[in-house]
Amino acid sequence: MTEQSAAAPPPAAAELPTPPPEAVVDLLGVLAYGELTAFERLAADAGLAPTLSDKAALGGMAVAEFGQFLRLRERLRGLGVDPESAMQPFVSAVDAFHDSTAPSNWLEGLVKAYVGDGIATDFYREVAAFVDPDTRALVLDVLEDTGHASFAVAKVQAAIAADPPVQGRLALWARRLMGEALSQAYRVAGEHAALAMLIVGGIGDLTEVGRLMARLADAHSRRLALLGLSA
Amino acid sequence: MTEQSAAAPPPAAAELPTPPPEAVVDLLGVLAYGELTAFERLAADAGLAPTLSDKAALGGMAVAEFGQFLRLRERLRGLGVDPESAMQPFVSAVDAFHDSTAPSNWLEGLVKAYVGDGIATDFYREVAAFVDPDTRALVLDVLEDTGHASFAVAKVQAAIAADPPVQGRLALWARRLMGEALSQAYRVAGEHAALAMLIVGGIGDLTEVGRLMARLADAHSRRLALLGLSA
Repeated sequence: MTEQSAAAPPPAAAELPTPPPEAVVDLLGVLAYGELTAFERLAADAGLAPTLSDKAALGGMAVAEFGQFLRLRERLRGLGVDPESAMQPFVSAVDAFHDSTAPSNWLEGLVKAYVGDGIATDFYREVAAFVDPDTRALVLDVLEDTGHASFAVAKVQAAIAADPPVQGRLALWARRLMGEALSQAYRVAGEHAALAMLIVGGIGDLTEVGRLMARLADAHSRRLALLGLSA
Repeated sequence: MTEQSAAAPPPAAAELPTPPPEAVVDLLGVLAYGELTAFERLAADAGLAPTLSDKAALGGMAVAEFGQFLRLRERLRGLGVDPESAMQPFVSAVDAFHDSTAPSNWLEGLVKAYVGDGIATDFYREVAAFVDPDTRALVLDVLEDTGHASFAVAKVQAAIAADPPVQGRLALWARRLMGEALSQAYRVAGEHAALAMLIVGGIGDLTEVGRLMARLADAHSRRLALLGLSA
């Protein structure tokens, strides 16, 4: 940002009009429900863990996600918003994503959590730039990795090293996850005009929306490479 | 205790020989694995919750159980014991119980947690009388109800009031839970001589073992009555 030419400064976050509260409520609501389901999903993954130590590690991460849910719920209440009403509009899309991508084993669960949380986190970080500073600080804070990423990367790398054919199956799985995630993201954007306008309005023009999509895709590819799942 | 006659004083816990460490390790190990699976089970029940508020309530209880697991694991480590080794001998019995009693709906999950945790808690409290004071204090503390009991009772009572035929189905379910729990408890006692000897040795004679069983059965009946599931 500091090296942008003075001739065409991009709109800085501080200069933007205060976003409509509806968009902030939507953002906090979808994040809160996302954390609540992340808790459930990681706890379910704990049930697939091959060792008691892995089970306890996943349990600890699930508990951390629940803590983030509590913080978002507290913030919604602080804004005078009923948390359930804020989450409810996102239940069917989030649940549809999880129902269509239920992991059938421990490694699929790890890849899903790492790849899925990664792209969601990148996306929310970008959106956070367009909301008020207090909301932004909270959103960036709850998106902090709770230790799951390095755990998942280490386990998946080790599994591929031990049994190379696993690589192809998990690569296919990662592609399917991305497809389902995009499909539900478009659905949410279509159903939540305030949230969609916040993003497009915050970015300023559609070329920038394209660049945002490219940044998300790049980060996704880097994650796949780290897992050892690149094509 | 204070009103016992001086002629035949029962052995007070403080006068008993230090129990064999194996029994203490067994007790902490089975409790730790029980808390870890309680966490998973309550998190899974959260997935069956009819409202977001119920989901969040169950999630909070699951998180509390995980906290108890962490304390028991810490204690095992403090005794120089590997927590996984201490839990491992109880995995198959605890898992067999849960596999044979997977709730098929929200109410079955609530009844299972309330009835199952109730009898387990009563039992562990009795056993705690026979171990060293530090272990006893920790065991009694982690057995404190995390709020699940009153939540379950209120929800089950309301469900029966709204739909009376539910009562008969849940009463049958509660009976099945008790049968499966007893069957796994006998298995654990048969496989863990140190734990079995701790109980029988601590109690002193088999008549008292019978009284302990009667106390557990009484408490179980009171819980069923509170739920509205008495015959």
